[in-house]
Amino acid sequence: MLGQMQQAPLLLTDILRHALRNSANQEIVTRLVEGGIHRYTYREAGERIAQLAHALVEMGIGEGDRVAVIGWNTHRQLELYYALAGIGAVCHTINPRLGPENAGYVMNHAGNKAVFYDATFAPLAAGLAPHLPQVENYVELCPEGAQTQNGLDAKSYEALIAGKPSEYEWPGLDENTACAMCYTSGTTGKPKGVLYSHRALVLQTLVASLPSSLGCGPDDVCLPVVPMFHVNAWGVPYTALLLGMKLVLPGPGLDGKNLHEMIVEEDVTYALGVPTVWLGLLAYVAENNLDFGKLKYSLIGGSALPEKIIRGYDAYGVRCRQGWGMTEMSPLGTVNVEEPGFYDRPIDERIPEQVKQGKAVPFVDMRVVTPNGDRQPHDGESEGHLQVRGPWIIDTYYGFEENALTEDGWFDTGDVAVIHPDGQMQITDRAKDVIKSGGEWISSIDIENAALNHPDVVQAAALGMHHPKWDERPLLVVQLKPGSSTDLSAIQSFVNEKLPKISAVDDVQAVEEIPLGATGKVLKTKLREHFKDYKLPTAA
Amino acid sequence: MLGQMQQAPLLLTDILRHALRNSANQEIVTRLVEGGIHRYTYREAGERIAQLAHALVEMGIGEGDRVAVIGWNTHRQLELYYALAGIGAVCHTINPRLGPENAGYVMNHAGNKAVFYDATFAPLAAGLAPHLPQVENYVELCPEGAQTQNGLDAKSYEALIAGKPSEYEWPGLDENTACAMCYTSGTTGKPKGVLYSHRALVLQTLVASLPSSLGCGPDDVCLPVVPMFHVNAWGVPYTALLLGMKLVLPGPGLDGKNLHEMIVEEDVTYALGVPTVWLGLLAYVAENNLDFGKLKYSLIGGSALPEKIIRGYDAYGVRCRQGWGMTEMSPLGTVNVEEPGFYDRPIDERIPEQVKQGKAVPFVDMRVVTPNGDRQPHDGESEGHLQVRGPWIIDTYYGFEENALTEDGWFDTGDVAVIHPDGQMQITDRAKDVIKSGGEWISSIDIENAALNHPDVVQAAALGMHHPKWDERPLLVVQLKPGSSTDLSAIQSFVNEKLPKISAVDDVQAVEEIPLGATGKVLKTKLREHFKDYKLPTAA
Ligand SMILES: Nc1ncnc2c1ncn2[C@@H]1O[C@H](COP(=O)(O)OP(=O)(O)OP(=O)(O)O)[C@@H](O)[C@H]1O
Ligand SMILES: Nc1ncnc2c1ncn2[C@@H]1O[C@H](COP(=O)(O)OP(=O)(O)OP(=O)(O)O)[C@@H](O)[C@H]1O
Ligand SMILES: [Mg+2]
Ligand SMILES: [Mg+2]
Repeated sequence: MLGQMQQAPLLLTDILRHALRNSANQEIVTRLVEGGIHRYTYREAGERIAQLAHALVEMGIGEGDRVAVIGWNTHRQLELYYALAGIGAVCHTINPRLGPENAGYVMNHAGNKAVFYDATFAPLAAGLAPHLPQVENYVELCPEGAQTQNGLDAKSYEALIAGKPSEYEWPGLDENTACAMCYTSGTTGKPKGVLYSHRALVLQTLVASLPSSLGCGPDDVCLPVVPMFHVNAWGVPYTALLLGMKLVLPGPGLDGKNLHEMIVEEDVTYALGVPTVWLGLLAYVAENNLDFGKLKYSLIGGSALPEKIIRGYDAYGVRCRQGWGMTEMSPLGTVNVEEPGFYDRPIDERIPEQVKQGKAVPFVDMRVVTPNGDRQPHDGESEGHLQVRGPWIIDTYYGFEENALTEDGWFDTGDVAVIHPDGQMQITDRAKDVIKSGGEWISSIDIENAALNHPDVVQAAALGMHHPKWDERPLLVVQLKPGSSTDLSAIQSFVNEKLPKISAVDDVQAVEEIPLGATGKVLKTKLREHFKDYKLPTAA
Repeated sequence: MLGQMQQAPLLLTDILRHALRNSANQEIVTRLVEGGIHRYTYREAGERIAQLAHALVEMGIGEGDRVAVIGWNTHRQLELYYALAGIGAVCHTINPRLGPENAGYVMNHAGNKAVFYDATFAPLAAGLAPHLPQVENYVELCPEGAQTQNGLDAKSYEALIAGKPSEYEWPGLDENTACAMCYTSGTTGKPKGVLYSHRALVLQTLVASLPSSLGCGPDDVCLPVVPMFHVNAWGVPYTALLLGMKLVLPGPGLDGKNLHEMIVEEDVTYALGVPTVWLGLLAYVAENNLDFGKLKYSLIGGSALPEKIIRGYDAYGVRCRQGWGMTEMSPLGTVNVEEPGFYDRPIDERIPEQVKQGKAVPFVDMRVVTPNGDRQPHDGESEGHLQVRGPWIIDTYYGFEENALTEDGWFDTGDVAVIHPDGQMQITDRAKDVIKSGGEWISSIDIENAALNHPDVVQAAALGMHHPKWDERPLLVVQLKPGSSTDLSAIQSFVNEKLPKISAVDDVQAVEEIPLGATGKVLKTKLREHFKDYKLPTAA
């Protein structure tokens, strides 16, 4: 027997409508690519989104068209998010750090009909143009007449929308209509496309916005440092409008100085980003004897949250919350939300809790399985491959025939994890990064975490290197503070003291700079190449 | 083009599963019908819900079966909510205050296959039994062997579930499957059934749980005084488990003394109920020189929140938030959530805001139309019929052929309201209670609100009485404090001083007791009958 309630589709447009009627005077503040700060209200954003929708339709963009956007976190990209989704088109965000080859590949693969880009990325766009026969229009996200001179016959975004009607009659759409897409960063093989639906993003937004998930609310001032060019900036552009939060968009200013200025000047209380960004900001604030103003929480994910960051921010009264997710999960999977009274406990007791990835949010199911597919108990010890399912988790990659799931309908995350009895999930490693020593699995995350605690270590990566007896043993690669005189054997002792014997590293090597990938994470593939002829001293 | 995410249905079972894995040790505390306090964890609740599911299936209850529940807010009714929905059956809550005739009518109309009832309602159940040929089983919500002796061959709930397996493999269901039903209280005509779907209740739970809606969180201790026998206690049994809140269920103890004890002993921070309950509790606390312990918020809806309650609770540091909704809306429509800094303002400035019904929650669309169906502007002045639409709003009443909507798909609430430019909705009156004086509409709510501010007025109702010149003019009916010696003309002057001239009441009459309906609201139909031969002094 079916219920007899209305069948109203879940659309991103409903979030926009809600924001406009209930929080019309709330602010959105942007650091502009062309310099200076831009500031407007939800109401004005709504008017410009409507104008943009008219312009898109006049440009020939319609239902199902994929439109590429290569840009920083700005109000203009926010407008593209809502206008494209609103007319039934697909906002295909491109990670400019993918590099021209991968960027060109995904734009062709997705069949982008138009490209919107920030001035910063004009050279990238111009270089790609000859290889993108299907693109009909280029639009630079810039004031009228300010287009970069680069041979692209690009329109200016501001000229494009100027004078268009500031209301739009959004069409009714099936809630499963595609609204956005994002490709994986292709650290292994070609990037693969994830095609998000309105339903998936609305549901993930509702769940992310719960006080038991991100834990931010209408009184917060929210700064997504996490880029809008990768997995919809973890959904913040939707969460912010749903809750009616003041939104602060950092544009191209992702360095310590610019971020610090935005946080303090705009009274940011809640920020989100990957660990590398928080390390940089922390160093800047410490070196310059500054503080974090009203910042209360930072949500950190994308790779493991190191103890060093937790302690560093804690000293300033900023609380670090860990989240875990992935492109294929829209991205939210878990958040580590503290129990009541958690912050009354001393930091040494808190650290072991805070380095966990967190509990699954509602409607995300998790399991950990052995390589044979047997389910592991949730005992905090039994490791295995982490698999997930739920309404905002991928079914099939774009353009693939077969779905991306196990036979029984779960998506394998590629991560290795344990689940604790209280529901906390803890990632040991990526399956491909796990160090396999004599049949045991060593977590590279644990080693890196220990290494980062050394005051002279700026960045760390643990790699499994061939060993004749144990199969693999850990090598620790570090990037030292400029001018540091610590010798590597001292670092090795420091690290090994903190680790269980089996995880003790066999050697430490230093590199000038540990390479980071397109999403700000350590690029182990590149490091492995660098060390391909290296032999462990223990392997003699 | 459709997105390519997993199609996972939205089921109430997912809320239960989430609660059990993430908050297994959280508490549910109940005042038992049989006396004493019962206390257990989510984990134990989950085990008993599974046991109950087995028992229900063994009893022959299956998908689509409607099962009647007549009970107080207890852990047993909570278990019925989840177990019935989980197996695909329908939890049909019966409001015992409907009286035997209406209760019998709705139970037959719904075709209930089994009846679960609290001992308090054993006489009602026994009296109805001869008229309910389709009922196969009666179960009393009581310990083993403690059934009321009343000729009903009833099972005991505790005996029924004892020894059953404490895990259940919940079936996958279409998210539009019916899970619960509730009849309107039939103040006009026969009660009509609303059949809720899993999808509708899950979505309304997600939205109610946002910090911008109810505004409670995992650290709150939640007391639903609003009955589980009417509109799912405003969804609290779902919201509490979704957020992992401690839940306090008052059982039959709805008087001031019992409620006060629960609030103080269990550290309740967030309570929900209709105004009459809050008036009773306030009087009890004031008379006995008590306080409200840790209570911070009470969410009040079901009828207009009077100034008297706001001021009364404010003096104790308890903040009253108004909500509006209805049976046909699952029920949540609006909540009046304060802007940041609101409570820094003096109470006299706050009152005019707090008496508004609030802003629509996400995904609920509201409009106000004239009797011709023309849309009124949202200017805070233009009154009209309030109409709504959205994913948890009724489409068709149970057993009806035609849907309950306007031609263009909106549900008419029967309320008259204005919408302010900032999105705040304010109810003037029920359409049938509005006092029509010389072409103008007078709000009975405004008059009642003014009257309740008089210290000797315990309850008030304004009625439109026939007037030869103006068509209708207001009569104010009051119930005075026992022993009050105030004369009615003093009350008339008091009230008319606060009202615009057109709303000034033509007369005041006292009654021993103002009758309340099945949901704790003033029963104007009954009052109108009482005054059917009455003539206004101004109508001479
Ligand atoms: N809190 C966290 N702790 C540890 N690892 C994390 C955390 N959050 C995310 N990750 C890692 O990031 C992965 C998801 O990241 P994302 O989808 O952004 O791209 P990627 O997997 O890094 O690269 P690619 O696009 O090539 O797959 C997860 O599978 C996990 O390995
Ligand atoms: N905050 C509020 N202020 C004013 N009126 C309210 C408020 N909340 C609810 N109401 C009134 O209650 C109505 C919905 O109540 P409910 O569905 O519980 O049953 P009812 O309408 O009172 O009775 P019936 O079942 O006979 O229709 C609304 O239509 C409105 O008139
Ligand atoms: Mg990946
Ligand atoms: Mg009604």
